[in-house]
Amino acid sequence: MLASRLWRSQIARSPLGAVRYHHIVPGQTHERVIFSGIQPTGIPHLGNYFGALANWVKLQRDAAPDDELLFSVVGWHALTLPQDPQALLAARTTMMALILAVGIDPKRSIVFHQDEVQNHTELAWILSCHTPIGKLKRMTTWKTRLAVSRNANDESEIDDSLLNAGLFTYPILQAADVLAYGTTHVPVGEDQQQHIELTRDIAETFNRAYPLPSPLLTLPKLMLTPSKRILSLRDASVKMSKSAIDPNSRIVLTDSADIIRARIRSATTDSIQGITYDPVERPGTSNLLTILAACTDEDVSTVAARYASKNHGALKADVTDAVIEAFKAPRAEFERLREETAYLQQIAEEGALKARQRSDAMLAAVRKRIGLS
Amino acid sequence: MLASRLWRSQIARSPLGAVRYHHIVPGQTHERVIFSGIQPTGIPHLGNYFGALANWVKLQRDAAPDDELLFSVVGWHALTLPQDPQALLAARTTMMALILAVGIDPKRSIVFHQDEVQNHTELAWILSCHTPIGKLKRMTTWKTRLAVSRNANDESEIDDSLLNAGLFTYPILQAADVLAYGTTHVPVGEDQQQHIELTRDIAETFNRAYPLPSPLLTLPKLMLTPSKRILSLRDASVKMSKSAIDPNSRIVLTDSADIIRARIRSATTDSIQGITYDPVERPGTSNLLTILAACTDEDVSTVAARYASKNHGALKADVTDAVIEAFKAPRAEFERLREETAYLQQIAEEGALKARQRSDAMLAAVRKRIGLS
Repeated sequence: MLASRLWRSQIARSPLGAVRYHHIVPGQTHERVIFSGIQPTGIPHLGNYFGALANWVKLQRDAAPDDELLFSVVGWHALTLPQDPQALLAARTTMMALILAVGIDPKRSIVFHQDEVQNHTELAWILSCHTPIGKLKRMTTWKTRLAVSRNANDESEIDDSLLNAGLFTYPILQAADVLAYGTTHVPVGEDQQQHIELTRDIAETFNRAYPLPSPLLTLPKLMLTPSKRILSLRDASVKMSKSAIDPNSRIVLTDSADIIRARIRSATTDSIQGITYDPVERPGTSNLLTILAACTDEDVSTVAARYASKNHGALKADVTDAVIEAFKAPRAEFERLREETAYLQQIAEEGALKARQRSDAMLAAVRKRIGLS
Repeated sequence: MLASRLWRSQIARSPLGAVRYHHIVPGQTHERVIFSGIQPTGIPHLGNYFGALANWVKLQRDAAPDDELLFSVVGWHALTLPQDPQALLAARTTMMALILAVGIDPKRSIVFHQDEVQNHTELAWILSCHTPIGKLKRMTTWKTRLAVSRNANDESEIDDSLLNAGLFTYPILQAADVLAYGTTHVPVGEDQQQHIELTRDIAETFNRAYPLPSPLLTLPKLMLTPSKRILSLRDASVKMSKSAIDPNSRIVLTDSADIIRARIRSATTDSIQGITYDPVERPGTSNLLTILAACTDEDVSTVAARYASKNHGALKADVTDAVIEAFKAPRAEFERLREETAYLQQIAEEGALKARQRSDAMLAAVRKRIGLS
């Protein structure tokens, strides 16, 4: 799986509150509008959790009262790869429950299923008529797809013909996800930086084509932090992955304390004395420090300093406690919420209604601007 | 302009009533569902009128009581080429008025603006995730675009990078237009045959991917008749065109009797004695016979036989009378209706509501099938 297929959320520790961006949204006057999306991909592991959901919670906590926050499960993006319908349906509900379980408050933030707000697909179509194909071809994610597709066919000279059109055009749908809400800030990982550039590019093209009386689409800013790259517990040369064959390589949010303990105990480290943060020479040890720092919300160098004279046993014990503690409340809340199907449905319906109302104004303005109403 | 950009309607004289197709539409039991779309392109000329709108009227007249008819102004397709917003808005309303003026009855047929029914763009996105790019690249319309684009750049080796994504993917939106209603029959000209093949292909791919409990999407059949190719009155080597520089080359629906008379009088023919239908050697004369046959709804050879021993003057006089007569009622009704903006809006709203209700059932079934609900 390409990491880029996840709408990552990696938010700066300190809120960007000092700078205020004014933007144009019909009938809206929020200082900041923050949009982020996540694919319905099942129970998140440590990397997913700290890379996306945990950051959404911090973002909600640190937001100014006037900021508007939108968090979306982007089911339509999931369709670009083959999906088992029953598994997808379950994953959609699971992801909604997880978002609430980690602490996103549906009274504070608009939490919704993207695939329940048709404004996204209408805007995507309109924007697709303003997006040159060359820009889509330059997307790294697309080039990677092409390369994978070529490898799969034994290096023969095949082209993109077998890949589906959605896989090629989904950056336009992503742009629509963002632009439909007059989004000013998009928290994403580095792997999504190029897509936000494209979103700005499309918005600029649209604004140039329909400049009067004033530019309609807001160019969103990237909220980027260095990615918290959490690695496999068994092979620190690769990222932690939900699709790795060895389940011991990862910890997922629903793992019990016993499983967490066993997996960290068996995590691959090294035989060097003392603890130092050295991702190149000591990737396994450094990975444990990264995990601990993520759990305690500290800088990894601060954490490393505390363990300079300790051994791997002490580090592993503390990492275990920290992960168990970090996952304890979300896990319990998720186990409770996943049974509350009526409540989850109600939250989803209310969220979709708000998102629809919120984007209706933008779509009406776009339609008027291009001559459809 | 590519002829294919118009959703042509060229319907067999004899209704296909003898054969009945059973199809699967959630909650619907119509014997035939017929869908056709037309772009908002301004006042139609003779070729447009007989190629599309006049055939819709015949189709409505000849339909069985249980047949469902949907006629749509496809505004979203217009966006694939640059549009002046004010002109597009006016053209949308004009086309709605024209459809009613020629005799489409909004109580019998569902008449609506495609761009007011978001189900089309949602279904287009879903289908785009099931359509290999190779199939879009093989579309003749796309290849023609590419060729035109290359010519425009002085034969240099440019690729498709500057063309917009909508121009590449609009056959998928067209497929969605058709499939959203469980359409069984699509009346189109030969230039659209490949697009209907693609629509069937996409529907089959979808049905194969989600086969249970039974195939969901109906494979539409083409209702094809030999195209009524009406040529320029000044240069019978090219089709009559709204974009030709010489206005004397065409007659449009709103032209007065005097203008019609003058243009047919000045139509280029030949100096051969007598009248015969010979499109290769006598294109101008044959074009007049084609126009007359279209006006009187006869076979062109039947008409030609009547004029075998007559001269061009007699033919032109009769063509003039026939065109004036054919355009008289639609023109008067159009002039009346175009002022009735409130009525037009009401018809459009009612049509969109019906189209939404009609396609909601299909979209709900599609969403369920793929795991989005």
